Amino acid sequence: MIHTSFSGRLVMLGFGSIGQGVLPLLLRHIAIPRENISIVTAEARGQEVAAEYGIGFTVEAVTRDNLRDVLIPRLRRGDFLLNLSVDVSSVELMKLCQELDVLYLDTVVEPWAGGYTDPALTPSQRSNYAMREEAIALREAAKGGPTSITAHGANPGLVSHFVKQALLDIARDTGTIIAPPPASDRAGWASIAQSLGVKVIHIAERDTQVADRPKKPGEFVNTWSVDGFVGEGCQPAELGWGTHEKALPPDGHRHGFGCDAAIYLMRPGASTRVRTWTPLEGPFHGFLITHNESISLADYYTVRDAAGNAVYRPTAHYAYHPCDDAVLSVHELAGKNWQMQPEKRLMTDEIVRGMDELGVLLMGHAKGAYWYGSRLTIEEARKLVPHNNATSLQVTVAVLAGVVWAIENPRRGVVESDEIDHDRALEICRPYLGEVVGVYSDWTPLQDRGALFPEDVDASDPWQFKNIRVG
Amino acid sequence: MIHTSFSGRLVMLGFGSIGQGVLPLLLRHIAIPRENISIVTAEARGQEVAAEYGIGFTVEAVTRDNLRDVLIPRLRRGDFLLNLSVDVSSVELMKLCQELDVLYLDTVVEPWAGGYTDPALTPSQRSNYAMREEAIALREAAKGGPTSITAHGANPGLVSHFVKQALLDIARDTGTIIAPPPASDRAGWASIAQSLGVKVIHIAERDTQVADRPKKPGEFVNTWSVDGFVGEGCQPAELGWGTHEKALPPDGHRHGFGCDAAIYLMRPGASTRVRTWTPLEGPFHGFLITHNESISLADYYTVRDAAGNAVYRPTAHYAYHPCDDAVLSVHELAGKNWQMQPEKRLMTDEIVRGMDELGVLLMGHAKGAYWYGSRLTIEEARKLVPHNNATSLQVTVAVLAGVVWAIENPRRGVVESDEIDHDRALEICRPYLGEVVGVYSDWTPLQDRGALFPEDVDASDPWQFKNIRVG
Ligand SMILES: NC(=O)c1ccc[n+]([C@@H]2O[C@H](COP(=O)([O-])OP(=O)(O)OC[C@H]3O[C@@H](n4cnc5c(N)ncnc54)[C@H](O)[C@@H]3O)[C@@H](O)[C@H]2O)c1
Ligand SMILES: NC(=O)c1ccc[n+]([C@@H]2O[C@H](COP(=O)([O-])OP(=O)(O)OC[C@H]3O[C@@H](n4cnc5c(N)ncnc54)[C@H](O)[C@@H]3O)[C@@H](O)[C@H]2O)c1
Repeated sequence: MIHTSFSGRLVMLGFGSIGQGVLPLLLRHIAIPRENISIVTAEARGQEVAAEYGIGFTVEAVTRDNLRDVLIPRLRRGDFLLNLSVDVSSVELMKLCQELDVLYLDTVVEPWAGGYTDPALTPSQRSNYAMREEAIALREAAKGGPTSITAHGANPGLVSHFVKQALLDIARDTGTIIAPPPASDRAGWASIAQSLGVKVIHIAERDTQVADRPKKPGEFVNTWSVDGFVGEGCQPAELGWGTHEKALPPDGHRHGFGCDAAIYLMRPGASTRVRTWTPLEGPFHGFLITHNESISLADYYTVRDAAGNAVYRPTAHYAYHPCDDAVLSVHELAGKNWQMQPEKRLMTDEIVRGMDELGVLLMGHAKGAYWYGSRLTIEEARKLVPHNNATSLQVTVAVLAGVVWAIENPRRGVVESDEIDHDRALEICRPYLGEVVGVYSDWTPLQDRGALFPEDVDASDPWQFKNIRVG
Repeated sequence: MIHTSFSGRLVMLGFGSIGQGVLPLLLRHIAIPRENISIVTAEARGQEVAAEYGIGFTVEAVTRDNLRDVLIPRLRRGDFLLNLSVDVSSVELMKLCQELDVLYLDTVVEPWAGGYTDPALTPSQRSNYAMREEAIALREAAKGGPTSITAHGANPGLVSHFVKQALLDIARDTGTIIAPPPASDRAGWASIAQSLGVKVIHIAERDTQVADRPKKPGEFVNTWSVDGFVGEGCQPAELGWGTHEKALPPDGHRHGFGCDAAIYLMRPGASTRVRTWTPLEGPFHGFLITHNESISLADYYTVRDAAGNAVYRPTAHYAYHPCDDAVLSVHELAGKNWQMQPEKRLMTDEIVRGMDELGVLLMGHAKGAYWYGSRLTIEEARKLVPHNNATSLQVTVAVLAGVVWAIENPRRGVVESDEIDHDRALEICRPYLGEVVGVYSDWTPLQDRGALFPEDVDASDPWQFKNIRVG
C-alpha cells in the first residue's frame, strides 16, 4: 500500500543494518522514482543491497570538514536527508537541512565520531540529555521551517506512540473518560498520565534472537549497530526523573542546565542493571542504557504549576536485555574496562530463532503495571521485509512512518517523536510489528526480593527507582 | 602407568559429570579389581557409562534417614568411599567413614539437600566457612584414623598445589632462597608466602568452552554440575580476608566463630563480580563464588604472633568466569531473583571448542602478579580421557591424585588439600592438565580505571579488595 508520494530527492546517509532494512520499505510504501534515491556511506557494506534495488551508492565518510561539500551538491529545497549513519553530528545535519530547506529524519541524536566516549568531556556533556538539548535548541529558529524529525526509530521513536496507546488503554480499562488530545498538546497528554497516576515508564525490551554460531572471545555481537550500542552503553546511565522519587541515587546528578527532566548516574549504562518485566520473559534484569526517549518522555509528560515547578513527571528509562550474545559482549567489554573488542559482528543471516519483545511498561497506576508493545519473531520479520531481522524491522518501519509523516507534514520544524500523531504512526507500523499486545501484570520490583539475603528496599512504595535498580 | 593398587572395595557415591569422568582414570591408574568398584547414585544418569566399564550401578538417593542402611552393608574396614554426589552431607559421610575405618574423599563440603539456600539459616550458617568448620571439627577425633580428604577436586583441591608451586617459582625468580617444607608444615609455608609479600591469591579461571547450540531461555547451562554451581552461587560471596586489607567492605561480615580467616558479603556470590586476570584472557570480570579454598588457603597461610594474633594472611578468593552460557544462565537466574530455571543442561558432547584456563594468581609480591595453572582444551581433554570435558578433567585427575594419595597415606585422619604433598599430586595430575604454565604480569586492578567516569579506588595500594571488586 502506497502511503504517500515524494517527488524530491532522498539522500540516505549511512547504509548499515537500518539503512539496508528500510530501503525496501521506502520503495514499497512511498511513490518515489528510484533514481531520486541515493546513498552516501562510509564503507562498501551494503553495496550489493543498493545494487539489488538499483540505488546509487557513494562511499564517502562525512566529517566535520567535508560535510557541506559532500551534501550541498546532493540536496536542494524540498529534498529529504534520511540520516541512518553513526559518527556524523545530527545537530550539524539538522542545521544544514534548515538552511537548505530540506526535510530530515534521524533515529538518534548522534555526535561526531568519538563524542560518546571523549574523556575530555564531562559525563554530563557526553550525555543524551546534553545532545537532546542541543537538538531542541534548534526548535525556535526552525519554527515553520522544513520538518526535521529528531530521534525517530523504534526507541527512541515508536515507543512514544506505544506510551500514548498504553495511556488510552489504561484510561479505558479504569473507566477514566478522556478525549485524546492531538500530539501537539503536550500539556493535555501530560495531564492524562498524571490523572492515571503513572509513576514509572520503562522501555522494557527482551531480544531473544540467537545465532547458529557462538560468540567468539574478542568479538562484540549484536542484532543492530555494534558501534551504536557500544557508544550509548559507554555514556552515563540516564533516566527521566519522576516527581514521586524520594531521593536522588547516591551516584545521581542533575545537569544544572536545560529542561531538568532527567538525571544521570556517574557510571556507564552498560554496567547498570535494572529490574523490569515483559509478558513473555517475565521478570528480568535489563541494562539502563541511556536513550533519547528517557529524557523526551519525561519532559513531554511533565506537569508544571503556575510557578513553573514540576508537580508531576514519570520516571522514564530503558531496561534493555539485548540478545544473549550482546549480554556476553557487554560483560567482556566491562571486563576490559570499556576497551572495545577487536572484532564486531552484526547478526543477520546466522540468526536461527528468537524474537524482539519490545514495548513500554507503565507502572504505578490503578491497575499496577501495563506492558504495551510488539512481539516480532525473526521468522516473521524475514517473511515481511528482506534485509531485516526482528530488531531492525521494528526500527525501519518506524523510520518509514516518520518519513511518511514528514512528507505529509512538511513545515513542522524540529519535531520529537512525542509530537508526532501516534495513530498515524501506529497505522503505518502495525503490519510489521508481529503481535501487538497490551498485558496487565501485578509484577513489582519488590516481588521475590530478600528471600536469601536482606535487601535495602523501600517497601512503602514499590515504584521507587531504588527498588528497580540492581545493587 | 599404575600409581598404586587397592585391594579394598571402592564405593562411588554420585555418578554425574565428575563420577563418570573419574572412572576411566581410576581404572587406568589404580590396580583394583573392577568388581570391587560399585556406584550408588540418585538417578539412572551415567548407567551406560558404568555398563561400558562393567561396574555395578545402584540407583538409590542417600538421605538423612537411609544413609547408614544404604552404606554400611557396602563398606567395611579398609574400603574407600568416594563421594562425588550433590545433596548428601559430607560431614555425615566423613563421620561414618571414621566409624567404619574407611578411606574417604570428596571435592566439596556438601550439605544435605537445600542446605545452600535454606532461608531458615542465616547467611553465615549457609556459608562455606561454616561448612568447613564443621568438617575440620572432626580433625581432633580423627587423628591417626583413616584418611578422609575433604574438598579435593580442581578447586578446591588442585589449586592448593598450584599455589605452592607458584610460591616456589616466585621465590626462585626473586632470588629468595628457601627449602620447601613438607605440606604438614603449615607454619613453614605460611612464612614463605609472608616473606615473598603475597597479598592476594585469586583462583582465576576463564572457561571458554562453547557448544553447537545456543542456550535456550529458561535453561541453565554449565560445563559441570548445574546444581553444584547454582548452590554455591546462591551462598554468600566469601573470601579469605588478608591482613593488608584496610577496611571491611560495607557489606562485609565476620562470622564470630571458628578460625576467623574469612569474611562473607551479605549477597550471593553469583551477583558479585571481581576484577582478575589470566594470561590468555587478559583482564576480565569473574564472579566471586564462595569456595572452600578461599577459606582453607587463607587459614593455611596465616602467620600468627606469640599472642595468637594474625600478623600475615593473604586475601584469597575465587574469580570465576564460567563458560559463556553459564554467564548467561546466571544473569537470567539473577533476573528471576534466584528462582531456578525449569531446565538444566550439563554441556558434554555438544561442546565444539574452547578451553578451561584454570590457575592461581598470586599478587602483591616483588614481581607484581604471577599466574600458575592449567590450559586444557576440549580437544585435548577428549583425547586424553573419555567422558570428560576440559572442566571435568581438571577435577577428575585431581580426584584421582587424592585417591592415590589417600591409599598411599591411609592413616592421616581428616586432611585438607593444603596438607597433601603438592609434588606428588602435581606429578599425577600434570599429564592431564594440557599446558601447565607460570606467567608474570604487570596487571593490577587499577589498570585502565577511571577513564570515562571517576571511580572510588585506593590508588596507594592496588591490592586492596576495594579495587578488585566491581562496584
Ligand atoms: N532509534 C532506534 O530505535 C535505533 C535502533 C537501531 C539503530 N539506531 C541508530 O541508527 C543508526 C544506524 O544503525 P545501524 O544498526 O544501521 O548501524 P550500522 O553500524 O549497521 O551502520 C552504520 C552506517 O553508518 C555508516 N557511517 C559510519 N560513519 C560514517 C560517516 N562518517 N559518514 C557516513 N556514513 C557513516 C557506516 O558505513 C554504516 O553504513 C545508529 O546511529 C543507531 O544508533 C537507532
Ligand atoms: N572441587 C572441584 O573442583 C569440583 C568441581 C566440580 C564439581 N565438584 C563437586 O562434585 C560434585 C559432583 O559434581 P558433578 O558435576 O558430577 O555433579 P552432577 O550434578 O553432574 O552429578 C551429581 C550426582 O550426584 C547424584 N546425587 C544427587 N543426589 C544424590 C543423593 N541424595 N544420593 C546419591 N547421589 C545423589 C546425582 O544422581 C548425580 O549422579 C558436586 O558436589 C560438585 O560441587 C567439585
